[in-house]
Amino acid sequence: MTTTVAFLGLGVMGFPMAGHLSKHFNVNVYNRTTSKAQKWAETYSGKAFENPRDAVADADFVCVCIGRDQDVIEMMEAQSVASVMKPGTIVIDHTTTSALLAERMSALAEQYGIDYLDAPVSGGQAGAENGCLTTMVGGNSSAYDKALPVMQAYSQKVAHMGPSGAGQRTKMVNQICIAGLLQGLSEAMQFAQQADLDGDKVLEVISKGAAQSWQMENRGHTMLKGEYDFGFAIDWMRKDLGYAIDEGKRNHSLLPVTALVDQFYAEVQAMGGGRWDTSALMTRLVKHNT
Amino acid sequence: MTTTVAFLGLGVMGFPMAGHLSKHFNVNVYNRTTSKAQKWAETYSGKAFENPRDAVADADFVCVCIGRDQDVIEMMEAQSVASVMKPGTIVIDHTTTSALLAERMSALAEQYGIDYLDAPVSGGQAGAENGCLTTMVGGNSSAYDKALPVMQAYSQKVAHMGPSGAGQRTKMVNQICIAGLLQGLSEAMQFAQQADLDGDKVLEVISKGAAQSWQMENRGHTMLKGEYDFGFAIDWMRKDLGYAIDEGKRNHSLLPVTALVDQFYAEVQAMGGGRWDTSALMTRLVKHNT
Amino acid sequence: MTTTVAFLGLGVMGFPMAGHLSKHFNVNVYNRTTSKAQKWAETYSGKAFENPRDAVADADFVCVCIGRDQDVIEMMEAQSVASVMKPGTIVIDHTTTSALLAERMSALAEQYGIDYLDAPVSGGQAGAENGCLTTMVGGNSSAYDKALPVMQAYSQKVAHMGPSGAGQRTKMVNQICIAGLLQGLSEAMQFAQQADLDGDKVLEVISKGAAQSWQMENRGHTMLKGEYDFGFAIDWMRKDLGYAIDEGKRNHSLLPVTALVDQFYAEVQAMGGGRWDTSALMTRLVKHNT
Amino acid sequence: MTTTVAFLGLGVMGFPMAGHLSKHFNVNVYNRTTSKAQKWAETYSGKAFENPRDAVADADFVCVCIGRDQDVIEMMEAQSVASVMKPGTIVIDHTTTSALLAERMSALAEQYGIDYLDAPVSGGQAGAENGCLTTMVGGNSSAYDKALPVMQAYSQKVAHMGPSGAGQRTKMVNQICIAGLLQGLSEAMQFAQQADLDGDKVLEVISKGAAQSWQMENRGHTMLKGEYDFGFAIDWMRKDLGYAIDEGKRNHSLLPVTALVDQFYAEVQAMGGGRWDTSALMTRLVKHNT
Ligand SMILES: NC(=O)C1=CN([C@@H]2O[C@H](COP(=O)(O)OP(=O)(O)OC[C@H]3O[C@@H](n4cnc5c(N)ncnc54)[C@H](OP(=O)(O)O)[C@@H]3O)[C@@H](O)[C@H]2O)C=CC1
Ligand SMILES: NC(=O)C1=CN([C@@H]2O[C@H](COP(=O)(O)OP(=O)(O)OC[C@H]3O[C@@H](n4cnc5c(N)ncnc54)[C@H](OP(=O)(O)O)[C@@H]3O)[C@@H](O)[C@H]2O)C=CC1
Ligand SMILES: NC(=O)C1=CN([C@@H]2O[C@H](COP(=O)(O)OP(=O)(O)OC[C@H]3O[C@@H](n4cnc5c(N)ncnc54)[C@H](OP(=O)(O)O)[C@@H]3O)[C@@H](O)[C@H]2O)C=CC1
Repeated sequence: MTTTVAFLGLGVMGFPMAGHLSKHFNVNVYNRTTSKAQKWAETYSGKAFENPRDAVADADFVCVCIGRDQDVIEMMEAQSVASVMKPGTIVIDHTTTSALLAERMSALAEQYGIDYLDAPVSGGQAGAENGCLTTMVGGNSSAYDKALPVMQAYSQKVAHMGPSGAGQRTKMVNQICIAGLLQGLSEAMQFAQQADLDGDKVLEVISKGAAQSWQMENRGHTMLKGEYDFGFAIDWMRKDLGYAIDEGKRNHSLLPVTALVDQFYAEVQAMGGGRWDTSALMTRLVKHNT
Repeated sequence: MTTTVAFLGLGVMGFPMAGHLSKHFNVNVYNRTTSKAQKWAETYSGKAFENPRDAVADADFVCVCIGRDQDVIEMMEAQSVASVMKPGTIVIDHTTTSALLAERMSALAEQYGIDYLDAPVSGGQAGAENGCLTTMVGGNSSAYDKALPVMQAYSQKVAHMGPSGAGQRTKMVNQICIAGLLQGLSEAMQFAQQADLDGDKVLEVISKGAAQSWQMENRGHTMLKGEYDFGFAIDWMRKDLGYAIDEGKRNHSLLPVTALVDQFYAEVQAMGGGRWDTSALMTRLVKHNT
Repeated sequence: MTTTVAFLGLGVMGFPMAGHLSKHFNVNVYNRTTSKAQKWAETYSGKAFENPRDAVADADFVCVCIGRDQDVIEMMEAQSVASVMKPGTIVIDHTTTSALLAERMSALAEQYGIDYLDAPVSGGQAGAENGCLTTMVGGNSSAYDKALPVMQAYSQKVAHMGPSGAGQRTKMVNQICIAGLLQGLSEAMQFAQQADLDGDKVLEVISKGAAQSWQMENRGHTMLKGEYDFGFAIDWMRKDLGYAIDEGKRNHSLLPVTALVDQFYAEVQAMGGGRWDTSALMTRLVKHNT
Repeated sequence: MTTTVAFLGLGVMGFPMAGHLSKHFNVNVYNRTTSKAQKWAETYSGKAFENPRDAVADADFVCVCIGRDQDVIEMMEAQSVASVMKPGTIVIDHTTTSALLAERMSALAEQYGIDYLDAPVSGGQAGAENGCLTTMVGGNSSAYDKALPVMQAYSQKVAHMGPSGAGQRTKMVNQICIAGLLQGLSEAMQFAQQADLDGDKVLEVISKGAAQSWQMENRGHTMLKGEYDFGFAIDWMRKDLGYAIDEGKRNHSLLPVTALVDQFYAEVQAMGGGRWDTSALMTRLVKHNT
């Protein structure tokens, strides 16, 4: 008998992820804006549904990749999607949410005899398209083991990080690293320009040593050119940093620069840059020097 | 006729750098504390001098690797080392200093008919020992071209960045990157611990993606263990950040997080950590949670 | 006919506030921990209730002064206190909460034909005891006008700031001012000590000019002595700053130093200082220098 | 015999200060730009000199109020003004400088048998004009006692803070307070605007309590109007903060928010606001929201 995977949310990430699944599984898709589901069904082999409850009804696994906490609550609770799944279904939530949401959904799932894994991803649109995401998973081990082949359809790396919420907390660690790192890189790139250095050459020279980072190699040159029209949007980043800072209150972490950079991102949003790549932190440093 | 290279300053960096030179050149060494120069002469082939003026008198190149601006001024001006070099000598200053110092020395050199290259390095003690430093050079092109084979004796990469001061300014870009990046990484590693995650596993998972950095790969695991007794000392880092922040005033750069992290480093110094590796930024976050 | 005022929450603030009311009105009090209500009834003239619904049943005004958002929700919604008030009752909420909570309660009140004013106070324990609080009120004007005499019983200044939520937003402005100001004062007092100046004399000299503040005059000397066992607790401050930072996300304010100082307060909490006065920000600066 | 006071530097501050002196003493004035000295001599009774050495030659006291460290060095050392004073002359330096400069000048003065007091002032242009400055003095007690009547001619408060440098260090404490305080006030005023509150009313309400400050009372309303064309210039403030941050390195103070706000001031300078009042910190918060 073929395994059926439902995929809810066909955005930038979900669309190609569900596409990868269609090569291995029987796939049902649902998207709030119906046209995207239709387009998906024209592109890949699988079935589009107009209603998430129908899409999940006979699924063995339900992948979710939507916006934020309230979207998941709306889907699972308000629209009763969790309650219509058959017992034993495993929900794999790829949405980046709070850890509290993961715990709440996990408790809800238990009521219905289903499993819930929080499984945020990193790797961006390119990672989703090329099927080489990194997937960080929280939840119980047996559900994880069963869900692994599903997640491997679009991941180069899947890791079980701990109980419910641990996937989200791992993703928070990732985002905290990026915030400080990008601010440092932004100040540095701006300094290079102000110092009349050849920025590309500077990047070439320093990118083999202790200052090296993925962002330096992949975003340094575009930052110097002022190109930000791609990548991971600042609006998403602020959502993620918000979850991290809130979680930090609960687990008594100290996040001074994360909190500060979050405010700098607010400034870029106010400049109209909410959809720009996170490396657009640099724009608030260079804007005055023109 | 063999080329003679004088090396002034046989500290952690200079000692092995001069060692590499001794394989290719006739080497004269000088160190303020004489015992180090004697030890060097016992380890490598070359001649130890008790006086820097004697060491440089017949040199074609004079490499310097001492502490900070005032040390170079003391050496070159107060001790009159610049004035006794033969015309055409090329000074290669590997000390990390301000760009103003580089410009001042370059002007002084001109008076004496010699050349001065500012050539700070990165790669640390290991890079010096293994002869694979990165060397960022400012100064005139013809002097650079002549000095290249000398610097290649201990560098995997040498780059000419521009006129006098450009080497130091490139090094500042490097240090600015590191300051923000390490603060982000510190907050993240501390968060991972507070969240009861397996930090090493988190590092393994996130170090292939957008949060990746040299520091994450090379310092993340030691930070989690609280090991800082190696690497690039915070006292040196504060010196370097001080030069960068001062230069930022002159070139109108904005360095908010660099300036903030510099103050956080002051806190680690006050905790007794001046000689710890720069990744010890993390100590000020974890100290309260024991 | 005498006006009846119910007072819910006899903590540090509510206890003396209700005391002032008892001089002018018929007062019903309720406190979750019953002993405090009994003690109140022994100190002042008025009636203690074991149940908030009984306390408010015949009241014309219901003053509330409890902890935070969830406490008000618990009281008004979960314990159904709002639903048992007689139509026309005016709730005066002195709890410092979010503006969203004020709006939610205002909407709830409308359902029950009652009025709800958000009316956070400043002036601290001393202000409550001496009846000279400042009360910042949001809500509709006619309710405000009727409630004014009640609030004047313990306020030296009452101001109507706008519609529902405007009282809380005004209080946020107050707390944002204090956060930056106290961090500046802390750095300054610590600098004075490190510079071997006579701190009290410095305060005397600078407290007439452009650096002057209420905190300088009232907390500077105690900060120099390391006394923090009084005043407005850091735990409350973090609650308030949390509301301000969240509201800042909604109204697109930029709060870099507020967000940073909030994290510094987290550090003082981690040092065990959650109950210390807000001026204990200074402790994280001096701890290493002993 | 009348006391002769020379005054060097007739800028915004020095011009009226020397004017007050002319009511009590025999006054010689000097200004680099000669026209200002002439204008002074037309306004007040006293004698203008074209050369500072002539102005100080027969003076009992020499007041100085020029720009920064290098200006004082240029005046006293390069132009040999210190060397031509008669033994026993007391220099009263009202310039805001580093403490190191004060110590250097004090040592220089000793060589020439004269005394040197560092005596920075606060109170601004209005304080200078109305003769009600606050003057913070470092240096030896007997010189202080003799100089007191001179300083009282334009001060409402004069205080002897300790040995050479203590006056400058006290002024640094003052400026550190102001930096954090103004950033807090800026964030608060901006928040009030974003929250659609009546900012002037908010100020009226909160300016009696724990958030109160001289800046709130004297600058809050103008900040709300975006008026900054008066007061103490940001270029001066950055100079002063630079001295404070450097001194903090030497005395091991931690100045995280001071260092951060110094960078925010750099941003306002980059916006063209170097001559605006220090309260113009707010401009970098509001610029995007128009
Ligand atoms: N350590 C590292 O990982 C890196 C260091 N650097 C830079 O390289 C430079 C040297 O660092 P490092 O080798 O680690 O330092 P060390 O402290 O190990 O050595 C310093 C050397 O400078 C000499 N020196 C210092 N002041 C004077 C002076 N006034 N006159 C004469 N000699 C003096 C010392 O002599 P003595 O033996 O008598 O004390 C010693 O030989 C610094 O500028 C540093 O910032 C750059 C990249 C990496
Ligand atoms: N203290 C101060 O200086 C100032 C405080 N405020 C604000 O005033 C409010 C009260 O502060 P304060 O009086 O100091 O606080 P306290 O901790 O002294 O008192 C809190 C009061 O609230 C009651 N309470 C808390 N949660 C609930 C709940 N869920 N249901 C019923 N009752 C509850 C407590 O009851 P119980 O006795 O059973 O615990 C107690 O009576 C807070 O919002 C604070 O931010 C504002 C300005 C100054
Ligand atoms: N303005 C204020 O509100 C306050 C200022 N201060 C401090 O007081 C000092 C003076 O400030 P202010 O009067 O406002 O400044 P101004 O710019 O108005 O005046 C500066 C004065 O210094 C002179 N000067 C500058 N450099 C030299 C030099 N190298 N040689 C000779 N004369 C020189 C100028 O001469 P010329 O006319 O030729 O340019 C001018 O007379 C500064 O240190 C400032 O920080 C302190 C408190 C408040």
